[in-house]
Amino acid sequence: VTIVNGTPLESVSVADRGLLYGDGVFRTLLVRAGKPLHWSLQYSKLTQDCAALNLRCPDETRLAGDLRDAAAGHALAVARITVTRGGGVRGYAPPKASQPTCIVTASAHQPRSGPAGGVALHLCHLRLAHQPALAGVKHLNRLENVLARAEWDDPALQEGLLLDQDGFVIGGTMSNLFIVENGRLVTPLLDRCGVAGVTRARIMTVARALKIPFAGDRITLERVMAAAEVFLVNSVIGVWPVARLGDRVWDSGNLTGLLMQSLATDDGSLD
Amino acid sequence: VTIVNGTPLESVSVADRGLLYGDGVFRTLLVRAGKPLHWSLQYSKLTQDCAALNLRCPDETRLAGDLRDAAAGHALAVARITVTRGGGVRGYAPPKASQPTCIVTASAHQPRSGPAGGVALHLCHLRLAHQPALAGVKHLNRLENVLARAEWDDPALQEGLLLDQDGFVIGGTMSNLFIVENGRLVTPLLDRCGVAGVTRARIMTVARALKIPFAGDRITLERVMAAAEVFLVNSVIGVWPVARLGDRVWDSGNLTGLLMQSLATDDGSLD
Repeated sequence: VTIVNGTPLESVSVADRGLLYGDGVFRTLLVRAGKPLHWSLQYSKLTQDCAALNLRCPDETRLAGDLRDAAAGHALAVARITVTRGGGVRGYAPPKASQPTCIVTASAHQPRSGPAGGVALHLCHLRLAHQPALAGVKHLNRLENVLARAEWDDPALQEGLLLDQDGFVIGGTMSNLFIVENGRLVTPLLDRCGVAGVTRARIMTVARALKIPFAGDRITLERVMAAAEVFLVNSVIGVWPVARLGDRVWDSGNLTGLLMQSLATDDGSLD
Repeated sequence: VTIVNGTPLESVSVADRGLLYGDGVFRTLLVRAGKPLHWSLQYSKLTQDCAALNLRCPDETRLAGDLRDAAAGHALAVARITVTRGGGVRGYAPPKASQPTCIVTASAHQPRSGPAGGVALHLCHLRLAHQPALAGVKHLNRLENVLARAEWDDPALQEGLLLDQDGFVIGGTMSNLFIVENGRLVTPLLDRCGVAGVTRARIMTVARALKIPFAGDRITLERVMAAAEVFLVNSVIGVWPVARLGDRVWDSGNLTGLLMQSLATDDGSLD
């Protein structure tokens, strides 16, 4: 079911700036028994991303209601919230009094757990461009992700690893990346490209609670290859241990296992 | 009037990848008495841009018919063709058998000729990112243009000048740029960012016919400031001489005037 601006509807205007220019942001999240998981983190990130584009963020209570309505009848649903700058006159200039379009859609969640032991990665040829004005934001301009994901269709490869234009590792096409080096957790800095997801933030919070040393850094591919453990995260898959990238094979790691457990037992009701 | 996949319709599915990811391309062009101007160039560019995203380009005759229908009743209309990858399963992976969505919309053209003597430019703070995989393509990921255009709302400034991340001049937020140096026409290379428009291509063709020396190059802001003449082009505005950028003021230039005339007398019926 889809809710557009509070009303069940399956379409948007052809004049919507989300379609015309990708002028908007989105979130993908799980909804269990009508309740969005980790909602305060999700809404907080949506608010930040709207602010990055100078978009008015829809009201929190109204959005949670839309999510409940869209996910009605599903024990566990995967939902998407899209907020665009709405319609208006032609041209790139954002209308002064724009009326955002809020699209909430949900469907039954079909878990896509990776193979036991972890996932295998494709190394993407496409390099992410540096755009500090949009880095970290989950906006609707996702052609880089589409082109990167189109590079492989071998079902034995579950995700693609993306580097930036300088050759630093940024993450998966739809996930954030962590590596373990000498018992320390490291994740790529996302100040020039990439999307800073909510589950990435949750990992940092859990690491702090468990007193696991943690840092953001520029990470070369060589460091990933040399890392003791590698894993990917997002709000729908949770944690995916990485088992293979090219010739490099990883056994399941202790720290990854610990973080998977910690995340699985935290459904966000305490956020 | 809007035509979606051959049918009058004002909306698209919320599951359309054009909305979800900006997964598509577009063209903006003039339609006079039902005939799209410079159609062979426009369609050729649409075909190239679709190919860059591995999208199937709609049939030329059908598109021309949609443009005629959408522009019916207008002596001169401004039209937009949008081609997206259509709907499909969730996720960045392009569906193997995607059915493109083709949106053709048109409305009466309200000419926005700049002030007599030329336009004044805002120098944009936003720097365009380098993405060779998408450079030159008029795709739907236009947040950089939106953010750049949002930087000013002084109606005395008609366009914004965009530099890339290395400080080279790329063009306007909605137009291509040319400078005149020692009687030679120079335009930015668009191999790393920017959109290579049809009117830019027409200028090159006219320059060749008139035996005006011509080159594509990396152009610094200093070179623009030192240029004898500067002008902007796109398919709707035609040629806009630049009269001012910051403290630099240009008088109307001979070569710009000659090219304006040459373009105005060529309505594309010979393309």
